[in-house]
Amino acid sequence: MSAGGEARSVREIGEFGLIAALRAALPAAVAEGPALAVGIGDDAAVWRPTAGEALVVTADGLVEGVHFRLDPGWTDWRSLGHKALAVNLSDLAAMGAVARLATVTLGLRGTERVADLTALYAGVGALAERAGVLIAGGDIVASPAALGIHVTAIGETRGGRVLRRAGAQPGDVVAVSGTLGASAAGLRLLQDGAAGPRGGAATASALIDAHLRPEPRLALGGMLLAGGATAAMDLSDGLLGDLPKLLAASGTGARLDAAALPVAAAVRALFPDEWLELATRGGEDYELLFTVPPEAFAALRRDADEFGATLTAIGEIAEWRAEEPVLVMRGLGGVEAPVRAGAFDHFR
Amino acid sequence: MSAGGEARSVREIGEFGLIAALRAALPAAVAEGPALAVGIGDDAAVWRPTAGEALVVTADGLVEGVHFRLDPGWTDWRSLGHKALAVNLSDLAAMGAVARLATVTLGLRGTERVADLTALYAGVGALAERAGVLIAGGDIVASPAALGIHVTAIGETRGGRVLRRAGAQPGDVVAVSGTLGASAAGLRLLQDGAAGPRGGAATASALIDAHLRPEPRLALGGMLLAGGATAAMDLSDGLLGDLPKLLAASGTGARLDAAALPVAAAVRALFPDEWLELATRGGEDYELLFTVPPEAFAALRRDADEFGATLTAIGEIAEWRAEEPVLVMRGLGGVEAPVRAGAFDHFR
Repeated sequence: MSAGGEARSVREIGEFGLIAALRAALPAAVAEGPALAVGIGDDAAVWRPTAGEALVVTADGLVEGVHFRLDPGWTDWRSLGHKALAVNLSDLAAMGAVARLATVTLGLRGTERVADLTALYAGVGALAERAGVLIAGGDIVASPAALGIHVTAIGETRGGRVLRRAGAQPGDVVAVSGTLGASAAGLRLLQDGAAGPRGGAATASALIDAHLRPEPRLALGGMLLAGGATAAMDLSDGLLGDLPKLLAASGTGARLDAAALPVAAAVRALFPDEWLELATRGGEDYELLFTVPPEAFAALRRDADEFGATLTAIGEIAEWRAEEPVLVMRGLGGVEAPVRAGAFDHFR
Repeated sequence: MSAGGEARSVREIGEFGLIAALRAALPAAVAEGPALAVGIGDDAAVWRPTAGEALVVTADGLVEGVHFRLDPGWTDWRSLGHKALAVNLSDLAAMGAVARLATVTLGLRGTERVADLTALYAGVGALAERAGVLIAGGDIVASPAALGIHVTAIGETRGGRVLRRAGAQPGDVVAVSGTLGASAAGLRLLQDGAAGPRGGAATASALIDAHLRPEPRLALGGMLLAGGATAAMDLSDGLLGDLPKLLAASGTGARLDAAALPVAAAVRALFPDEWLELATRGGEDYELLFTVPPEAFAALRRDADEFGATLTAIGEIAEWRAEEPVLVMRGLGGVEAPVRAGAFDHFR
């Protein structure tokens, strides 16, 4: 990186430029090595201890005013605890790992009510218990300006194998679990001021719940790994933000079909003009995006059905040639067009 | 905890009351179990993966305005990166673990200069390289109000064994590594406005360096474990804040001798009226506090000497009886008196 680049601010070079600059600032012996099977740049790192199976490690934080608001009518404390752990377990799910352990660091003003923080921990604890995850401690630090919840989660690999972003092959099906856009629709409802004008309370409540209480797809991650998926990641920045990262890691392109995207009827009904935008660029779905050969996909979909999970094919992986767009999407009108890629960037 | 207790704020019940309340809010299956050899409440957690040796996991964060200031004349970015990793490696050292891996999550305003953040990472990287630690990634989140650096570090145990806070026995020597109070003296110099009136620039600079760039005692932690130490912890909240935690975990009392405390001549000279307070309650020494039978201590001290480290006996572990003070200290005048225990509390 040039000196000119270094004088710039984070906002100017963006989150992804910054990650590359930070990685380059580390000595090679620290950022890579035989013990680090997967380093900076995937959903999680994969580390091989001296003895035993490789482990998967990820860290993700939620900051008040950025990731959540504590105003009345927004999140409750229990849901906040759930989500702080869920977004980390989602990274482990995307690697096909078995979640085992988490640490929780709270940054607190000091004025918080103890009852609210125990409710937050109850939310962490309920998800942890269901997922078989131990809470191993962490830290409490003063953070006078904004509440922060920083979680690190550790999982075990299944026989040392993981699903990475790299690995998609031309001809593979591109597929997702669940539906897309519900979380972004729920956020929009919260921003509109509770569920006010936008239709029934039950519908609104389900969408808001998708935003506040995402469910990490841990069992499904294991099924994908066992069932022959070639690449996977979790959807946190929206399909058209995240898929290009998988394509870049795999060195391939892809074609998507907008009509195939699984979008809940409630999202289409409440946001008739915006549902496609919410489903492709809304973010925070915490579903799994993966690629798999067509024959393996058929078997995976049957297995997932029995298990109560829905898998949907939304496109296919294509060879990528230098002059061509990496990603094209057949729109709702049937016309195929290049897609403006680009993830949600927290700083730009 | 009563409903009355839960209506109180963090500031009212304090950091240590809060930790107990949060632990109680977790389901038992999440906070303890055969895989969690050491859970919430020691310097770090000890977790047994399905295969392989037990691992040690710790998380600690630094928040702008609380743990550091970025005003001119305070910390530089490289030192800040060093310290953020060092305080975590210090926890691993206190357990006698071999440091292996860390994740770094940055909470950023977005206005930071890229060159400053790469300097921060260079500080992380230089210590990581020296300590044999891999940086496995982490996360970058927006944090508009204050810069935050949240690190999680993982170490391997030596044959599954660790040093805990529990384990001190009556008759054991109480000892510390290095000297006490240099970091607190350095902080005082920074608060006074650089090294101004307080004597020579070189002296001041060494004390400020002790505050800004503490050195985790990783090799020493391994020596203590091999050499028969019965309990250990790292000194982050000051001797008289931390030792009572070790005593409570061990179920013992202790007698200290103020005249035996290792305090650098510079600290005594620059702070003639305050050096004892700085050495006992100043905090952020990041030296190791440990207990060990007297015969083993003599051998350990010789080994440490050869290695360039200084170990100093400062008292002894005593049986504790219900009516007696847990901790007494013979003062500089030769009179023994009970010590007001109590750690630095970030919220009270």
